[in-house]
Amino acid sequence: MKASIYVTLKEGVLDPQGEAVKKSLHLLGYDNVDEVRMGKYIEIWLQGSDPKKTVRELEEMSDKLLANPVIEKFRVELEGE
Amino acid sequence: MKASIYVTLKEGVLDPQGEAVKKSLHLLGYDNVDEVRMGKYIEIWLQGSDPKKTVRELEEMSDKLLANPVIEKFRVELEGE
Repeated sequence: MKASIYVTLKEGVLDPQGEAVKKSLHLLGYDNVDEVRMGKYIEIWLQGSDPKKTVRELEEMSDKLLANPVIEKFRVELEGE
Repeated sequence: MKASIYVTLKEGVLDPQGEAVKKSLHLLGYDNVDEVRMGKYIEIWLQGSDPKKTVRELEEMSDKLLANPVIEKFRVELEGE
């Protein structure tokens, strides 16, 4: 199975990297850019037959290792779901 | 408009960060994980009325700044498209 995990900063958490990218885009002439937020996109290939159990496992992995639950939130997507 | 840009390493490009995450997941007991690839997930809010023109602009931004075309590929998605 293949899964995608999207990790993004929670609302209200400052994103200095996104701010820097926005400024650079303005300098390149893209004045129409209002906001940029940088997140992580994690692709995971794993063994498993029960989609529900696999999604639960992926949520556990995200909580324990892939995201920082204090400042980040995540979304898990299983391919073909 | 809101856009999402997914930046991933091209096939064949080594991903040491993904390898490290895979090893950590194995140490946590998730032996069923075969492969992990780390990418970037960039959310951009921008002004624009013509979706086709906006997608073209976003592809330009990705080529120039957001992705490294030598080792990375990207996918642009406009919300509501």
